[in-house]
Amino acid sequence: MNKIVPPSSPDHVTTGPIQGSVKAWSSPPGRTDIRVPFREIALDPSANEPPVRVYDTSGPYTASPPHGDVHRGLPRIREKWIAARDTHDVTPRAVRPEDNGFATGSQLVPPCPAPHTVREGQDGKLVTQLEHARAGIITEEMIYAAHRENLGRAEMVAGAEERRADGEDFGASIPAFITPEFVRSEIAAGRAILPANINHPELEPMVIGRNFLVKVNANIGNSAVTSSVAEEVEKMVWSIRWGADTVMDLSTGRNIHNIRDWIVRNAPVPIGTVPLYQALEKVGGVPENLTWEVFRDTLIEQAEQGVDYFTIHAGVRLRHVPLTANRVTGIVSRGGAIMAGWCLHHHRESFLYEHFAEICDIMRRYDVSFSLGDGLRPGSIADANDAAQFAELETLGELTKIAWEHGCQVMIEGPGHVPMHKIRVNVEKQLRECGEAPFYTLGPLTTDIAPGYDHITSGIGAAMIGWFGTAMLCYVTPKEHLGLPDRNDVKTGVITYRIAAHAADLAKGHPAAQLRDDAISRARFDFRWNDQFKLSLDPDTACAYHDETMPREAHKSAHFCSMCGPKFCSMRISHDLRENAARQAGLEQKKEEFREGGNRLYVPRSLCGTNDETKQPA
Amino acid sequence: MNKIVPPSSPDHVTTGPIQGSVKAWSSPPGRTDIRVPFREIALDPSANEPPVRVYDTSGPYTASPPHGDVHRGLPRIREKWIAARDTHDVTPRAVRPEDNGFATGSQLVPPCPAPHTVREGQDGKLVTQLEHARAGIITEEMIYAAHRENLGRAEMVAGAEERRADGEDFGASIPAFITPEFVRSEIAAGRAILPANINHPELEPMVIGRNFLVKVNANIGNSAVTSSVAEEVEKMVWSIRWGADTVMDLSTGRNIHNIRDWIVRNAPVPIGTVPLYQALEKVGGVPENLTWEVFRDTLIEQAEQGVDYFTIHAGVRLRHVPLTANRVTGIVSRGGAIMAGWCLHHHRESFLYEHFAEICDIMRRYDVSFSLGDGLRPGSIADANDAAQFAELETLGELTKIAWEHGCQVMIEGPGHVPMHKIRVNVEKQLRECGEAPFYTLGPLTTDIAPGYDHITSGIGAAMIGWFGTAMLCYVTPKEHLGLPDRNDVKTGVITYRIAAHAADLAKGHPAAQLRDDAISRARFDFRWNDQFKLSLDPDTACAYHDETMPREAHKSAHFCSMCGPKFCSMRISHDLRENAARQAGLEQKKEEFREGGNRLYVPRSLCGTNDETKQPA
Repeated sequence: MNKIVPPSSPDHVTTGPIQGSVKAWSSPPGRTDIRVPFREIALDPSANEPPVRVYDTSGPYTASPPHGDVHRGLPRIREKWIAARDTHDVTPRAVRPEDNGFATGSQLVPPCPAPHTVREGQDGKLVTQLEHARAGIITEEMIYAAHRENLGRAEMVAGAEERRADGEDFGASIPAFITPEFVRSEIAAGRAILPANINHPELEPMVIGRNFLVKVNANIGNSAVTSSVAEEVEKMVWSIRWGADTVMDLSTGRNIHNIRDWIVRNAPVPIGTVPLYQALEKVGGVPENLTWEVFRDTLIEQAEQGVDYFTIHAGVRLRHVPLTANRVTGIVSRGGAIMAGWCLHHHRESFLYEHFAEICDIMRRYDVSFSLGDGLRPGSIADANDAAQFAELETLGELTKIAWEHGCQVMIEGPGHVPMHKIRVNVEKQLRECGEAPFYTLGPLTTDIAPGYDHITSGIGAAMIGWFGTAMLCYVTPKEHLGLPDRNDVKTGVITYRIAAHAADLAKGHPAAQLRDDAISRARFDFRWNDQFKLSLDPDTACAYHDETMPREAHKSAHFCSMCGPKFCSMRISHDLRENAARQAGLEQKKEEFREGGNRLYVPRSLCGTNDETKQPA
Repeated sequence: MNKIVPPSSPDHVTTGPIQGSVKAWSSPPGRTDIRVPFREIALDPSANEPPVRVYDTSGPYTASPPHGDVHRGLPRIREKWIAARDTHDVTPRAVRPEDNGFATGSQLVPPCPAPHTVREGQDGKLVTQLEHARAGIITEEMIYAAHRENLGRAEMVAGAEERRADGEDFGASIPAFITPEFVRSEIAAGRAILPANINHPELEPMVIGRNFLVKVNANIGNSAVTSSVAEEVEKMVWSIRWGADTVMDLSTGRNIHNIRDWIVRNAPVPIGTVPLYQALEKVGGVPENLTWEVFRDTLIEQAEQGVDYFTIHAGVRLRHVPLTANRVTGIVSRGGAIMAGWCLHHHRESFLYEHFAEICDIMRRYDVSFSLGDGLRPGSIADANDAAQFAELETLGELTKIAWEHGCQVMIEGPGHVPMHKIRVNVEKQLRECGEAPFYTLGPLTTDIAPGYDHITSGIGAAMIGWFGTAMLCYVTPKEHLGLPDRNDVKTGVITYRIAAHAADLAKGHPAAQLRDDAISRARFDFRWNDQFKLSLDPDTACAYHDETMPREAHKSAHFCSMCGPKFCSMRISHDLRENAARQAGLEQKKEEFREGGNRLYVPRSLCGTNDETKQPA
């Protein structure tokens, strides 16, 4: 491992606004103390349209001036809210050499100097968002998340009911306007989670559930081949810049405690981890040496740091392991393989399963949400929807109820590799078995034959499963199955999954989702090239691709592009056609003839016109 | 426009085998005169598996030694078959200056020197594949295509019936084994086409229909900003190398006649065009100057060259144009916009619609298949499934019947931009209106907000619409809406669409589709890295991505990759687990205990074992 260089200047992370937009904040009615971030995209004056507001996950890094000094940590916007509840400061668990893989001297990354007070909830008091929700209490986090889901709208958008009716939601119940009370009721019912560790005051709250916008998770992590602290923090900042709603830190190896410290203190999004990975490091990487005590210690360690959700592979039971024996690809989840190895070696039931109630007690104390891991997810088309996968899912349903009894928030992880025709039953079974707890799936990949393109094989499955009811999609990068993703891969993965999530929101009939599609389509039709770039998920790439063949600034208002050239531009012809039509006096009469001619599809609206109608936001 | 350089050496096109495979040929039973190409992928001896055979569209360019001299043209494998039928040689239409956009001197590309005899069918005789099929005649092309669909299998693959039953085919009827008689009957019913102009003897026949493998089309074309002849031929060769089943030449501007000549003489796949583009060039690019005579002349010109299918926008009727007036993006099909402009200018019904029977007569004479264009397809989510789109589709249904009456083969073009929940009704309506004629769709794009990534927004829609019953998917590249695709974009587009088509084949339950997924999954589980690369859709990229972090040859058998590192490789743990289990004598007893414990999902098969079962091709 090379010497690790801790971040020493703000230059280490990417800051500044996303091309063509500015960071804006909006407060929910009557709560000026709560400031919810958005991005606002101002359009060309010729459009005569108000700015388009889009959901923003990127944190203060894209503000002007940006937050960029990772030594300070982010503003602790939740601090007061948390302090007003029934939690108390505790002396944190002392950091041990094994927490950082016994790294010493120049190999040891220093902890993040940002201030951090550790809190714990109390027995018999309300701690988790679920407990508050059940008690009928609307927390500040719920108000924040509700306003965010509405994209800052103060009220119902025009046409929202029609859009809802137009979609096909497979039993979801997306309201035309999200109220804080709706967020509360969804959390109370277990249908949504608001992952927000009380030790992560820097968090900008968000909600995960099938009646909300579909969310995206990006995985980061150093792996054995490593990277520096700065790189790890930058991976998180880079992921959220392009739209990751949560980030899982899957690091292994040395320094993971301290690297995690830097990440959480600088993360405006929920951070998830798989504590089993660190626990395994602590016992030298030998699965059979794992113990409940080491695992328990790791849970507390990470919960105190402020991790918002833990993947817990408690559904891999000893009795499930034989079900994987004749699979084509065995067990492909790292956590699943580790637990299966432990169970078989000791001929014992999983310690995660046996100690599940204690795990709940610990996680409740900090409001760490469960992400119940799918350790037996299929790793190939051949293994999709098999007995091992579904047996584990049934166990996850059982565990969901236990976690709920303990006041914990729960989501459920899902596959994996699944051909298209077997996707929907996954959602149906998950909703049934797990009492509608939010589903959180990896892809699924719809074929195995395209390594190097698995963001696409899985983006197909992700869009579909999101439509069917999955609440959060875990991204897959082009490097899946092949190696560690680099910066470009992470961006490609996030953008691909933002596409999948947005396609799902559109298909479900989310009331505001189509506003952005309509705005970019109007820009396209009006040849407002810069507006088209600004409204796109990745303005940099859209602009760069355009400029490859038409680089000049004058081309940004050209009424054609290099794809078809001026003579064959259908949109230009379409414009000419409207203009000509407007001039043709005899047209109305012609239309009358057609109407009489029995064209049943004819819609009697003005053919010509100034196109003003489409200039208003729908 | 720069000076055009005609290809002068074989170096101008990409030749040589695709990494890890060799070109092979297989003859249908009893027909050694017919040689159907495949690619064979030999696996590592440790796999103890037979080579995997995959469908091959790449033509003689990937043979050893390759065909690479584009001056000679490809071998005319259909020449004898065609000569034995009722067609006769004709004196070809003389090439006119306007055919090449009045290019002269050094600007004029010479015609391709490969020999080409022009033929015509006769009235009252059998010419088209449809006419032969209806007469009960199985042509050589049908035998060829049937064998190709079976991937060269001589008989039904084991488990094929089960795979069929496992899929969800939405009313398709894919047999477990494709016989020539089945191909004939599908063509006779109009449910499939075999695009094969009698003037394209170089063609390697293939079939398009929903009961066959889903096909992919790639568009190439020079656009106004141009490129050289060599570049255009190379675009075709490059597209089919990565899996394009047909190629549409959408060139405009100068030299298109001669460039097309080079392309067709060197194309082993069906070539499609939009004759309207060239007709428009001939009248100086002014839509209203188009006449039936110019169009008719262009049809004959291109049919004599050997173009296999024509997009004909005869469904854009005068009465449909007003239906587009209030659209967000108007008319986005170039052909649609041109015809709408013509109709409005002249206040007349479309000359394509009025002369449709004559168009049929011409196309029948050469067996040029119809691709009935969707000139009013939606160009945005807002316009999907609207009155204009569906009115045109109904007209296309009407025209389909007329074309069939004239003995012509027909497929139907489809959208466009469609959110996921509105995709399926497109297929259902198309099948109903058009008598189950094959559907050929562009994407559809499932959202408008990701220019630069429209191969992905549309790949999602393409996979779904392919599953629902679309027979051929027209690719979309990352440059869609932004500019002219380059070489990398073409490859990315083709691979993305091969993923979509294959995902659709798997979901439909194509009996042999999963063989490749299973082979690559076994390779993955066995850490046969080279086999994994070879079996992938893009071996070059898969290998390069792997080698970025683990470049050494020894890493090709490493039992881990850089993604998780050695300690956390679930597959390695999974292997260890199987091996350990095999050693554990007491295991059987344990299993007995669980069975008695009431695990209803327990499947009593040997947990351990040598994994030999998975080493046989399923």
